[in-house]
Amino acid sequence: MPYLPILKIILKNDYMQKISLLIDIGNTKIAASAITHQEVLTNLQTSTWDRYIRRDLPKIDNAIEHLAEIEKLVEEIKGNDQIFNIGISFGGPVSKEGKILLSHSVPGWENIDLAKILSQKYSCKVFMDNDANVAALGEYTFGLEKPRDMMYITYSTGIGGGLIINGKIWTGYQGLAGEIGHMLVDPSGPRWWGDRKGSVYRISSGTYIAKRAQRWLEDEPFEGQILKRMVNNDYSKVTAKIVAQAAEQGDTLAWQSLEYSAWAVGTAIANTANILNIPLFVIGGSVVKAGDKFWNHILETAQKSKMPEIEFDIIKAKLGDEAPLWGALALTSEN
Amino acid sequence: MPYLPILKIILKNDYMQKISLLIDIGNTKIAASAITHQEVLTNLQTSTWDRYIRRDLPKIDNAIEHLAEIEKLVEEIKGNDQIFNIGISFGGPVSKEGKILLSHSVPGWENIDLAKILSQKYSCKVFMDNDANVAALGEYTFGLEKPRDMMYITYSTGIGGGLIINGKIWTGYQGLAGEIGHMLVDPSGPRWWGDRKGSVYRISSGTYIAKRAQRWLEDEPFEGQILKRMVNNDYSKVTAKIVAQAAEQGDTLAWQSLEYSAWAVGTAIANTANILNIPLFVIGGSVVKAGDKFWNHILETAQKSKMPEIEFDIIKAKLGDEAPLWGALALTSEN
Repeated sequence: MPYLPILKIILKNDYMQKISLLIDIGNTKIAASAITHQEVLTNLQTSTWDRYIRRDLPKIDNAIEHLAEIEKLVEEIKGNDQIFNIGISFGGPVSKEGKILLSHSVPGWENIDLAKILSQKYSCKVFMDNDANVAALGEYTFGLEKPRDMMYITYSTGIGGGLIINGKIWTGYQGLAGEIGHMLVDPSGPRWWGDRKGSVYRISSGTYIAKRAQRWLEDEPFEGQILKRMVNNDYSKVTAKIVAQAAEQGDTLAWQSLEYSAWAVGTAIANTANILNIPLFVIGGSVVKAGDKFWNHILETAQKSKMPEIEFDIIKAKLGDEAPLWGALALTSEN
Repeated sequence: MPYLPILKIILKNDYMQKISLLIDIGNTKIAASAITHQEVLTNLQTSTWDRYIRRDLPKIDNAIEHLAEIEKLVEEIKGNDQIFNIGISFGGPVSKEGKILLSHSVPGWENIDLAKILSQKYSCKVFMDNDANVAALGEYTFGLEKPRDMMYITYSTGIGGGLIINGKIWTGYQGLAGEIGHMLVDPSGPRWWGDRKGSVYRISSGTYIAKRAQRWLEDEPFEGQILKRMVNNDYSKVTAKIVAQAAEQGDTLAWQSLEYSAWAVGTAIANTANILNIPLFVIGGSVVKAGDKFWNHILETAQKSKMPEIEFDIIKAKLGDEAPLWGALALTSEN
């Protein structure tokens, strides 16, 4: 783990200076930070989105309210300082021009040109990309001892990915590259979104590790005793984290749900490595913490599934939850 | 189909001039051509490799004999002219430095530094890459009306791929990128090389379209009557081409073998598009000619398997069998 001091320091100078503002708009929270000359001005993390995502509002009002919230946040951090540029990590696909394409996190933000709005309001450049791409750039720039082309994979409630090719984020021509969660690896697997079956997202995401274990508990009343006990027979309380804990304690049903998840991710990594021949895969997100047996199953599956001559490393992300902020910093620095 | 005059013209000048020599070393044949100032000097295609692949020789003798054959070919084409540079398309993986990594076509050529050998012998630059990469560059440079990043897929006795990213061949850090044939898409599919199952190569290649139909004929004596008749009940005579012909005549067993092949390629294209978000896939090779129903099944599978927002086109290659020579020309031009 590299030493990451700058986001930890709160340093407020009296004189006005130019700052780079970094914002991480996630599914459950928003985080922000500001730096000047490599020093942190302030490190502010608001409470979770739940506070202001009002799903009872019409979509557009909701969107405007959240925009106002972002602006309030910017003003708060900025204080008397002047914004030099803004880097944003957004939890959803973003076009090459900075327009939000899909917004699961903030309803109504589809097709909003957030970068342009903030750019005009604060007369500065705004760089924005989706969270997986930004986290990829963050890990690449600040997490690696030796920079190498890589894919960053978010292995969390969902599955996302970001590619670094020739040292830069590879967005693809629509800005949608890196969608390893959409890779189909098992035609006999669970159905998913229309005509598709066995996507990595549907098999591997934390959401489905939990749902699969729930279904199995319902279907097999004599199995998963440890897991059952851990949720006091209330299957709705099963989470990926609890599945991992039950698996560690020897619950076979729980382990099988994790195993299928790890298998699909390992296969998808091998498939991607065969296509791109990049030397490194970096996996971040909460599911990475599901234990050594689980982690090793990803590595072993990837090794046995790849073309034999292809070589790559798989490592855990170094920057943790702050990867998007670090990535946003890299985004403002490289542009 | 673009107008491709230069490889068709045989034009031999009397005076000595500098030529670019283009060589296509394939699995079953070698082809060569030479150009100067965009004019063709000569267009020579030797007989098939079978003539000189003597499998009774020790590996290393075999390799040396074939090297001598290449040199003889170069001398023949060169005549009194001076070689300015050489572009080679090789039917197997090639390292970034021009070393042959695997050689299924010429036994014993593994680890031979063919580019260096020819470079020293003829005091010129030699550019070499594997056939799929070179064909990709050929299609990109000479086959498209509007150049776009793309993947070229060889859909033939084997399955290979070459990537054009930012207008250049993307070789990956070991020179092994583009191996879409190694993508695993069906864990319940046929076993293949060790621990792997359901690779695109194993499901989709012409070799296995034929082998699968053979096995099915053996296993199901009352099915595949049209196909059986076409080979006079001699299952060893089944080829991918005959399977396609039988399918066109309404043979269900034959169609199912083709269908599985098209399905895997369509799925692999969607998976690759989700990762790279490139706008174009170009498919070349003999299997592309297996009829409209087959072609449409590739397109439909790719469409329904991709992430909905991702968009790409799938087209047939334009340059046909000459793609590697055109690619070798592009290789010498861009370097």
